[in-house]
Amino acid sequence: MKDISGGVCAPKSFRAGGIWCGIKASSKKRDLALIYSDKPCTAAAVFTLNRVKAASVLVSQEHIAGGKLRAIIANSGNANACTGEAGMAAARRMAELAADEFAISAKEVAVASTGVIGVPMPIAAIENSMSALANSLRSDESGHAAALEAIMTTDTRKKEVSAEVEIGGVPVRFGAMVKGAGMIHPNMATMLCFITCDAAISRNALDASLRRAVDKSFHRMTVDGDTSTNDNVIIMASGAAENPLIETGSAEYEVFAAALENICVRLAKAVARDGEGASRLVTVSVSGAADENAACVFGKSVASSSLVKAACFGADANWGRILCALGYAGLDFDPGKTNVSFKSGAGEITVCRNGASVPFSEDEAKGILSRDEIEILIELGDGPGSASVWGCDLTYDYVKINGDYRS
Amino acid sequence: MKDISGGVCAPKSFRAGGIWCGIKASSKKRDLALIYSDKPCTAAAVFTLNRVKAASVLVSQEHIAGGKLRAIIANSGNANACTGEAGMAAARRMAELAADEFAISAKEVAVASTGVIGVPMPIAAIENSMSALANSLRSDESGHAAALEAIMTTDTRKKEVSAEVEIGGVPVRFGAMVKGAGMIHPNMATMLCFITCDAAISRNALDASLRRAVDKSFHRMTVDGDTSTNDNVIIMASGAAENPLIETGSAEYEVFAAALENICVRLAKAVARDGEGASRLVTVSVSGAADENAACVFGKSVASSSLVKAACFGADANWGRILCALGYAGLDFDPGKTNVSFKSGAGEITVCRNGASVPFSEDEAKGILSRDEIEILIELGDGPGSASVWGCDLTYDYVKINGDYRS
Repeated sequence: MKDISGGVCAPKSFRAGGIWCGIKASSKKRDLALIYSDKPCTAAAVFTLNRVKAASVLVSQEHIAGGKLRAIIANSGNANACTGEAGMAAARRMAELAADEFAISAKEVAVASTGVIGVPMPIAAIENSMSALANSLRSDESGHAAALEAIMTTDTRKKEVSAEVEIGGVPVRFGAMVKGAGMIHPNMATMLCFITCDAAISRNALDASLRRAVDKSFHRMTVDGDTSTNDNVIIMASGAAENPLIETGSAEYEVFAAALENICVRLAKAVARDGEGASRLVTVSVSGAADENAACVFGKSVASSSLVKAACFGADANWGRILCALGYAGLDFDPGKTNVSFKSGAGEITVCRNGASVPFSEDEAKGILSRDEIEILIELGDGPGSASVWGCDLTYDYVKINGDYRS
Repeated sequence: MKDISGGVCAPKSFRAGGIWCGIKASSKKRDLALIYSDKPCTAAAVFTLNRVKAASVLVSQEHIAGGKLRAIIANSGNANACTGEAGMAAARRMAELAADEFAISAKEVAVASTGVIGVPMPIAAIENSMSALANSLRSDESGHAAALEAIMTTDTRKKEVSAEVEIGGVPVRFGAMVKGAGMIHPNMATMLCFITCDAAISRNALDASLRRAVDKSFHRMTVDGDTSTNDNVIIMASGAAENPLIETGSAEYEVFAAALENICVRLAKAVARDGEGASRLVTVSVSGAADENAACVFGKSVASSSLVKAACFGADANWGRILCALGYAGLDFDPGKTNVSFKSGAGEITVCRNGASVPFSEDEAKGILSRDEIEILIELGDGPGSASVWGCDLTYDYVKINGDYRS
C-alpha cells in the first residue's frame, strides 16, 4: 500500500466540490460539500449509536439501506439535529436537490450535517446554491480540498488519506476525509468521515470490511466520551478500477479490508490528535488482557479518564490514576500482576511493576511525557489480548473552547 | 430534624481528635485523625467498587464484617493504595496501634487513608504519634474540627453536618464529616465519610439505612467520573441515646433512615459543590422517566458530560449537549417528548420543548446559569420516575489542579 495524492478524487470516477452557501453566515467559510461518482457505487455506512439522531443520519440510514449511492451532500454550520419534522423535511430536500442536478434518485444520495444542534436548517440557502455546488465539482485534488474545507468547522488540521493498493493484480485507490472531534464551535455534532474507493466489491464485503475497520479505529478513539448525534462513516466503491469483484472470504478481501483498516486507523489517530484543545496524542496500549475486547475496554477506561488526561497535559507520570481507571473499567483483573510504562520519541520508562511503584527518574519520565505523541503501555498478565486506543490530553483550551458562550 | 453543633462529637459517647504526625511532611498540616466511642458501636459501611482497593479499604472491609466498631483511625497525605504487602501490613498496624491505646480488639477499629497512590505508607510516623493522637481526643466540637482538618487534603470547604431527630420519643443525634472530590493533590484517592450516631439500632437496620442513604446521595454525585480506590462511608451507632432499639420495618426505622438520607444528601451536595476547581453546583433533576433508576441513569449521563459541564462553566444555555448526553445514556427514551429548563435563584427558563428549540432570551438564560447553584430540569414524558443528581462545572482550575506536576 502506498500513499498517493488526490483525496476522495483519487479513486477513478469520483469528483468533489465545496462552496459557501450561507449557513455559516458570519464567517463566510465554505459550508456545503458534494462528493459525486460518475458510476453507481456500492455503499456502506456506520452511524452514531446515540438515541438522539440528526435528521441527516435518519435519512441517510434509509438511503443506504439499498446498498447503492451516487453522491454525498454534506453541510457544516448546522447539525440538523433536534429540529423536528422541519429538520427531516430539510434533510430529504437536500438529497432531492442533489439528485435533481444529476437526474438520479434521491435514494442514491447520502446526507450529512455537522454544526450547532437545535437550530432550524436554512434549507433555502442550499436550494439557492445547488447549481453552484454542482458546478464546483472537480476530479482532481482541488475538488477534494474544497469539499474537505466545507465540512470542517474549526478543526485545526485537515485530516485526509489517499492510498493505492494492488488487489488481484489491479491497482485500487482509496480517498478519505474526516471532520471532527474538534467540537470547537460549542454544541457541535461531530464526526463525519467520507471514503471513496474505485474497487469492484460486493455490498456484503464492503459492509463487513467497513464495520471491521471502524471497530478497530474510530471505535477505539476518545476525545471526551460524548457520542455525537451526527457521527457517521460512509464509504462508496465505484468499481472503476475494474478489479475482479471482491467477495468476503477471499485473499483479495483480506487485502482490501486491511487497507481500509489502515486508512481508518490513520484518520482516527488524526482526529484524536486534533481533539478539542489537545496538545498531545495519547495512545493507550494494553497487552496481556483476556482477549482483544477486554484490552479495548481497559484502554478506553484509561484514555477517557479526565484525571489521566489532565496528568498527560501536565506531563505527570501519575501512574496511580491509570491503575485507578483500570479498576473501574468494569472487568476483573489482578492489580498485582499489572505493569505500567510510558513511551515516546524521548524513550521508555517503567513506573509500576506488579501493581506497585518502582523507582524511576521523575525528570526522565517528564521528558518522555512532554512529547507531542506519547504512549501509555499497560501489561495485565491475564492473557493474550491486546489493543491500542487513541485519545488526547485535557487542556485549558478544552475548557475554553467548550465553555465559551455560543454567540 | 434540627441542626445542632458538635460534628461527630455531637452524639453521646463519641470523642474525636486530630494531629500532625509527619505524613504531610512539607505542609505540616494535620494528617492523622481518630474518632472513638466510649461504648461499643453497631457499625456499617459502604466501600468503593473500584477493583483496585486501598489496603485501608481491604482491612476495614474485614473489620466491619463483624458489625461492631469502637474507633476509626484515618490519615491524609497517603492513600495506602497500590502499596503491596507492605501497605496491607501498615493498614493492619494502624488498627492495632489504635486498639492498643484503648485495650480493644484491632477488629473494632476501621482504617481509612486518603492521599497519593503508590507511595509507601510511613507507618513509623503513626507509631511515634499514637499517644499524642489518643491524647488529642475531645468530646466537644474542637475534637471534631481537629479530626476533620486531619482528613482534608486541599478541600476548600469543611463539609460537615450534625443534627438531632426524635425517635420513639427520645432525641437521637447524628454527626458527620466528609472529605473529598477536591482531588486537588494529584493522584489523590478521594472520598472519606464518617458518621457517628447515638441511636440504639440493630446491625441490619443500620446497614440497610446506610445503603439506602448512600444510594440516594453519594451514588448520585459526580465530579469527574473517576471512582477512587479509597472511597468509603462508615457509620457507628453507640446506642447512648437509650432509645428503644430500632429495627427495620418500624416507623422509627423510617425516621432514622430519612434523617440519615437527609444528612448524606447534604454532604453529597457539599462534595459536588467543592468539586475540583468547581465554580458552580449543578443539580440535574430528571422527571418523567420510566422509574427512579432510569431517572438516575439519565441524570448521571448529563451531569458527567464534559461538554455539559464546560457549558455550565460558560453559563451557556447549550441544551443540545443535554439532549446528546441523554441520547448516549444507554436507555431508550423519546427525544420528541423531552423538555429542558434551567433554574436558579435568578429564575427559570424553558429552552427545549418536545425535543426542539423554543424561543428564549439568551441574556435571561445566561443570568440564570451564572449563579453559584444551578439546576437542569429534564422532563422525559415516559413515566413516573424522578431523581436528582449532583455535579459541578468543568473549569480551567480543574485542569490546573489535575495537570500540575506532583512535585
